Amino acid sequence: MNRRHLLRNLSAGAALTAVPFADNLAKPVVPARPNGLPPISITDVKTILTSPNGIRLVVVKVETSEPGLYGIGCATFTQRAYVVQTAVDKYLKPFLIGRNADEIEDIWQSSYVSSYWRNGPVLFNAMSGVDMALWDIKAKRANMPLYQLLGGKVRAGADLYFHAQGSSLQEVEDSARAAMERGYRHVRVQMGIKGNAVYGARGATGTPASSLGAKADVAGPTNPKLIFDPTAYARSVPKLFEHLRVKLGDEVELLHDIHERISLNQAVQLCKAVEPYRPFFIEDPFPPEDNEHFKILRQQTVVPLAMGELFNTQQEYLPLIKDRLIDYIRIHISQIGGLTPARKVQALSEYFGVKTAWHGPGDASPVAHAVQLALELCSYNFGIHEGYVFPPETQEVFPGCPTTKDGYMYAQETPGHGIDINEKLAAKFPFPDGPTFDYSWGATRKKDGTVIRP
Amino acid sequence: MNRRHLLRNLSAGAALTAVPFADNLAKPVVPARPNGLPPISITDVKTILTSPNGIRLVVVKVETSEPGLYGIGCATFTQRAYVVQTAVDKYLKPFLIGRNADEIEDIWQSSYVSSYWRNGPVLFNAMSGVDMALWDIKAKRANMPLYQLLGGKVRAGADLYFHAQGSSLQEVEDSARAAMERGYRHVRVQMGIKGNAVYGARGATGTPASSLGAKADVAGPTNPKLIFDPTAYARSVPKLFEHLRVKLGDEVELLHDIHERISLNQAVQLCKAVEPYRPFFIEDPFPPEDNEHFKILRQQTVVPLAMGELFNTQQEYLPLIKDRLIDYIRIHISQIGGLTPARKVQALSEYFGVKTAWHGPGDASPVAHAVQLALELCSYNFGIHEGYVFPPETQEVFPGCPTTKDGYMYAQETPGHGIDINEKLAAKFPFPDGPTFDYSWGATRKKDGTVIRP
Amino acid sequence: MNRRHLLRNLSAGAALTAVPFADNLAKPVVPARPNGLPPISITDVKTILTSPNGIRLVVVKVETSEPGLYGIGCATFTQRAYVVQTAVDKYLKPFLIGRNADEIEDIWQSSYVSSYWRNGPVLFNAMSGVDMALWDIKAKRANMPLYQLLGGKVRAGADLYFHAQGSSLQEVEDSARAAMERGYRHVRVQMGIKGNAVYGARGATGTPASSLGAKADVAGPTNPKLIFDPTAYARSVPKLFEHLRVKLGDEVELLHDIHERISLNQAVQLCKAVEPYRPFFIEDPFPPEDNEHFKILRQQTVVPLAMGELFNTQQEYLPLIKDRLIDYIRIHISQIGGLTPARKVQALSEYFGVKTAWHGPGDASPVAHAVQLALELCSYNFGIHEGYVFPPETQEVFPGCPTTKDGYMYAQETPGHGIDINEKLAAKFPFPDGPTFDYSWGATRKKDGTVIRP
Amino acid sequence: MNRRHLLRNLSAGAALTAVPFADNLAKPVVPARPNGLPPISITDVKTILTSPNGIRLVVVKVETSEPGLYGIGCATFTQRAYVVQTAVDKYLKPFLIGRNADEIEDIWQSSYVSSYWRNGPVLFNAMSGVDMALWDIKAKRANMPLYQLLGGKVRAGADLYFHAQGSSLQEVEDSARAAMERGYRHVRVQMGIKGNAVYGARGATGTPASSLGAKADVAGPTNPKLIFDPTAYARSVPKLFEHLRVKLGDEVELLHDIHERISLNQAVQLCKAVEPYRPFFIEDPFPPEDNEHFKILRQQTVVPLAMGELFNTQQEYLPLIKDRLIDYIRIHISQIGGLTPARKVQALSEYFGVKTAWHGPGDASPVAHAVQLALELCSYNFGIHEGYVFPPETQEVFPGCPTTKDGYMYAQETPGHGIDINEKLAAKFPFPDGPTFDYSWGATRKKDGTVIRP
Repeated sequence: MNRRHLLRNLSAGAALTAVPFADNLAKPVVPARPNGLPPISITDVKTILTSPNGIRLVVVKVETSEPGLYGIGCATFTQRAYVVQTAVDKYLKPFLIGRNADEIEDIWQSSYVSSYWRNGPVLFNAMSGVDMALWDIKAKRANMPLYQLLGGKVRAGADLYFHAQGSSLQEVEDSARAAMERGYRHVRVQMGIKGNAVYGARGATGTPASSLGAKADVAGPTNPKLIFDPTAYARSVPKLFEHLRVKLGDEVELLHDIHERISLNQAVQLCKAVEPYRPFFIEDPFPPEDNEHFKILRQQTVVPLAMGELFNTQQEYLPLIKDRLIDYIRIHISQIGGLTPARKVQALSEYFGVKTAWHGPGDASPVAHAVQLALELCSYNFGIHEGYVFPPETQEVFPGCPTTKDGYMYAQETPGHGIDINEKLAAKFPFPDGPTFDYSWGATRKKDGTVIRP
Repeated sequence: MNRRHLLRNLSAGAALTAVPFADNLAKPVVPARPNGLPPISITDVKTILTSPNGIRLVVVKVETSEPGLYGIGCATFTQRAYVVQTAVDKYLKPFLIGRNADEIEDIWQSSYVSSYWRNGPVLFNAMSGVDMALWDIKAKRANMPLYQLLGGKVRAGADLYFHAQGSSLQEVEDSARAAMERGYRHVRVQMGIKGNAVYGARGATGTPASSLGAKADVAGPTNPKLIFDPTAYARSVPKLFEHLRVKLGDEVELLHDIHERISLNQAVQLCKAVEPYRPFFIEDPFPPEDNEHFKILRQQTVVPLAMGELFNTQQEYLPLIKDRLIDYIRIHISQIGGLTPARKVQALSEYFGVKTAWHGPGDASPVAHAVQLALELCSYNFGIHEGYVFPPETQEVFPGCPTTKDGYMYAQETPGHGIDINEKLAAKFPFPDGPTFDYSWGATRKKDGTVIRP
Repeated sequence: MNRRHLLRNLSAGAALTAVPFADNLAKPVVPARPNGLPPISITDVKTILTSPNGIRLVVVKVETSEPGLYGIGCATFTQRAYVVQTAVDKYLKPFLIGRNADEIEDIWQSSYVSSYWRNGPVLFNAMSGVDMALWDIKAKRANMPLYQLLGGKVRAGADLYFHAQGSSLQEVEDSARAAMERGYRHVRVQMGIKGNAVYGARGATGTPASSLGAKADVAGPTNPKLIFDPTAYARSVPKLFEHLRVKLGDEVELLHDIHERISLNQAVQLCKAVEPYRPFFIEDPFPPEDNEHFKILRQQTVVPLAMGELFNTQQEYLPLIKDRLIDYIRIHISQIGGLTPARKVQALSEYFGVKTAWHGPGDASPVAHAVQLALELCSYNFGIHEGYVFPPETQEVFPGCPTTKDGYMYAQETPGHGIDINEKLAAKFPFPDGPTFDYSWGATRKKDGTVIRP
Repeated sequence: MNRRHLLRNLSAGAALTAVPFADNLAKPVVPARPNGLPPISITDVKTILTSPNGIRLVVVKVETSEPGLYGIGCATFTQRAYVVQTAVDKYLKPFLIGRNADEIEDIWQSSYVSSYWRNGPVLFNAMSGVDMALWDIKAKRANMPLYQLLGGKVRAGADLYFHAQGSSLQEVEDSARAAMERGYRHVRVQMGIKGNAVYGARGATGTPASSLGAKADVAGPTNPKLIFDPTAYARSVPKLFEHLRVKLGDEVELLHDIHERISLNQAVQLCKAVEPYRPFFIEDPFPPEDNEHFKILRQQTVVPLAMGELFNTQQEYLPLIKDRLIDYIRIHISQIGGLTPARKVQALSEYFGVKTAWHGPGDASPVAHAVQLALELCSYNFGIHEGYVFPPETQEVFPGCPTTKDGYMYAQETPGHGIDINEKLAAKFPFPDGPTFDYSWGATRKKDGTVIRP
């Protein structure tokens, strides 16, 4: 890069023109800023729907008054993708066109209150698409990878965890071994149980997955389709951990996701039972509605706890963090509104010894992974990155996906997020819609028909 | 600026060369990054001592391998300036030469533990000098004013407060009126008491100042020189507020600094007594050693409370913030290690409804003011900026001081901090040293000889 | 020193002459004390740098108006020795010359606030050098060993612990056995792990030490040199305890220092796992930034806990003590400002069942050991003294080192601290400086490059 | 005392002979200390009863193996003086004869558990007599006033408060004015109520005193003699404060002692009602049995609270101090066992912002006042000294009483406590015993006959 040229241009600055105030409003005492070149403004906000990996992804593209300068962000709420799209196209776009693209924090704050009733996964995902795109723009203008704006690297790469699964102890062991051979030092282990729709053990023989897209619940409580027995599941996990720790040795880190499906008592007993096998973390022991359960859990065991992929607002995560009731925050970054709030959660967590393990499997787009990664590379209190192997189609639609090697994820060393979207190619992977398609998260039920969360 | 040129160069990236590992050490699993241009590295770290305003300022200048690219930061601990200088020159400089200037967070974290015993005003001020300088470098490389890296403006300028004082109700009123006429909407009011060394009322007729540079304490407790009667002072403040609210009307915001000098009971009673006159904030009711007093204070009154210019570590400020015991955090940014930790405090505070009012009178250099201001312009939870009028000599030594108008402080719209130091001119304002000069904060004592904090 | 001369002058008492008040100041109501001989005043404050044991020690010498009467104190902050020296020479010395050497508490309190920003390892070590020297002077004038002034002996000698180490279970066992044969009843055990820079296992075969003086961190997070794997370490400790308890029997007391390097969960699990082997104490399970973790730890196990060699201020140790969250306070006496505050911590701790285990390996000078010992001999709530075998060179530079026998440390029965410094000999052991020398505490990092505390 | 002789012997040091252990006991591993001159040992412990001021004082004199070297301490529990005497003469004396007089802390600790059932006013006063005497001996041997051993002066003198009283607003005002004219800046104000035995208003016209020695309670509940109406009293105090603040102006500090006699509700209401008149402190709002009441009181007002002249054990004062529920600790030093524990309480209190206001009217001997004063002169957290004007007879019996001037108490600048007892003269003031004398604290009762505390 011609650095000398850059430095010569430094004095030109970021001068901004003033916008006249409406006469019938109080004239603020703040004078207009000095004249000069106009700021770079937002000229368009677009949603791009694509599904190269079979999951409905929503990406927002923000275009600016500077030719060729745009940014992209993840707005993926896969089960309600069209709602997010409407939120962006009908509301955020007109609200933001003309705004100064530099004013990321203010755009977040003003968008947040622009609907009076605020937050929730729809509005926050929409805001996230814009927010990440604006950071992309800013980092491109700075000619730096995003992580440089956030403070620079404190580590070379981000440790990943792999999702191992199977329908038996042996199958899970085999799945974990395969990951270890590929260099993963952290493996999430989930085992199916015959006749049960166990979370995370999709496709295990004889086990109906608790999956997206399975039209399973039409009949309702009197005719449950996806059955799950919490008690059988709770019994199975300690056996799984014992088996794997014995067979796989001490070196590998084992993770597990309860996914909210059992009672307070079962969850605490499960955590205590697996503690001798030193899990890296146990995730989502309770639904977010029962955050207060953590006080009881924490008194009984110090198994590392990860929580929060469903969290939206600070009412949900602030008490857990400030009282040190969890060890890893699992927030899904687009679900709280993007990088702007995620940076604050990261700083907050650092004060209380809580590490970040942002949520991010296939239903976070690669854009979200790239943004997460940038934040992780700069965060002293990074814990783990949820691994996801980008399929070839995804990598084509999203050129510049983060790379993974030996169980680490590495950032692209190019300005901005380092990832782009090929809109033409994206259009070739439309949403798997159709008259028979079920957009819902599969409703798992107990044998008696009771819906289970989630 | 030639933006097309910039965008063309974006693809060169920030590639880093790998340094081979020592053979006798465990080889980390993280591979070296791909070869390419070397990173910009730190080539020198210098301290510059100057005193254009009569206060001993310490500025750190970090130079890089890129010709002409450097940054400056504030490391001013005015009463122990030479100690900070030694910390920088003898320890941080050799520790940091050769480091990648981009890795600000890691440089902070590794410097923090490089002395084993960590924190404290000396080591943190030294680290702050480096930290702010690295942000200056980063923002210059991004070709942006610092506030752009931190998220962009959420306000046009930062509200300032003026320091009004006098030795009588009328004198303070006159001083406040003069400030109001100059556009200030916020005025800190401090009144001297005859025969007492009252904080903040320096130079008021007949009132010995509790000042820097007064060789006041040789004789010790049996011969106190600077006398302060806490009870007389505590009685005077409600009278001052009543007078000013009546005389100055409702529009002006009144602030006051207790400066730790009275008892728990006096402080709470003072706060309760001034509550009807709606102070903007009451500052430092207790010394930081008695942070626990805030629990009692907060039960009795909701006068807005500002605290913390002496704070160093999170043990000191975290409990007050997370339990919502104060309203404004008054941390002196260089005293906690610079912008890197200040950003985290800002994010933390936002979660708990606490606003920022970073400490910064004349014993923070203009560089510190510029950095504070950048953060304030981007912080949703900004409260107030402590006003300081840069004297002409200071403005010459530090070209690019933030500007003030109508009670607001505005940022320079130039890359980096927007402020520089003229080293030749700085050298013309050496420290006011000499055999008779006292470097200490004046030891104020009660009539019986007891030292008062502070 | 000519003691007879000293004693002759002592009978004149401590009469003080009055210094007239400045006319423009409030005249305090306290009258001057009756005329008589002037008090003994401070005439010089000097720093002595020496390194007979290869560790940079800082000793302060306070000289008085009484010919031959002086005292010495420890101001050793080994990684920032020159910074402490500047603090003493440039600031404390001019502040204190002329002060009455008897007024130790007031000198502490007025020095404390003399810099406005207060505390921190630099300023407190500087104050400690003076404080201990003043107690030396006072005890010499009293013609008593220091412990007599503090209340007299409650025990004959102070139990010591030995530092055993090795790179295998057998090596640590052998090291512990050797200590036991020399009479030690308390042994701290630390085991190296191949390829890891394990704290406390310096020099163990194949294990790079996390040591002082290793220029290890130039390359930063993308090129870590001293690698440490917290998980491997955490797994190793219970095995070590099990091995040693079986092999060494029940009589010996085993101690261990985690040195902050692992997570909350790992630390608690480690403590629970070693509990059956009855450790004497487990030290520093968390960094001081995470003091709040102790609440969680204390709910799960009653393994005796030692904490605090990095503590400076009461915000750091008061909550742990008053809430009975630890069992041993590990404060480094010079790090909190000397004997004056250490006496208060001792009294405080006694109320809450907390014992003293003042920090003091080789980076506390023998003067610090002597002062600690004096306090320990008088403290009902003494726990243990960190053993250090003074090398012959150290004993020559510091004539009158405390003696050790059968695992006890004994005080010299001579007035004052009972230890002196031979300045000429001290000058023969200059600091091991030089262009290639690294003053920093080695930056240990995880495999991914993340800095580890500490 | 022949000081020259003393000093000659002091240089021999503190060498101690070993005492052989009984064979049937485990031989401690601590070897005997090196031979040398024997320590100074306790040869006699005597109680001296005297009443020069009409109050039964108990003084303990400890004599040593060093000719002419002795110390005195206060053991005054005036209502049970003979019990204390028995405790000393029959138990402590034989327990301590032969003990090394230097080992003050150990003598305290071993005496404390020498009766298995421990503490309480009798045993602690007995121990206090010995403890203070040993400190007197130690300071004499050091040739220093006691305050020098405790850290040296932090103030020139100790502020005193005067006891003003009367049976009407005017009488109390007159009494306070008289004190102010004598230089007192602090006045405790107590007003009698016709027909009521109000505490602290002894001798007020028409008001039976709640006094010592008044044979008032023979008849018991069915025939109460000393009547007290809590409600009438509680109503009177705010009126008194309002009157005095108006009449006496702002400068004087007003104190008041409730002396436990009213209900929780009355006490809190009283405190709130007097808060606008800024009392210096309100004392003993509750009996010590109701310490928990302070939590409620503290929520409603920050009137400064003084508490604790009846406290014995740390169970009584530790919760109030550590939770910052009081502002002044009123412990009667001999009542907790002397200077050794009082030093610890002082250090403890300093951490929590609590000041010392040791209890000490006429029923503390002048020896106790001198010891208190020594501690106060060295305590950063000193609050106030309860004033007592030593009558001429007292000053003759106790040569070297502390002096008072302008409302300050000053220490004698002579070695040890600076006060002695003239035993021959003391014998001329025997206890006012006799067949009709009532040794009891007068039993005040409500109109219905119910005993009131106290």
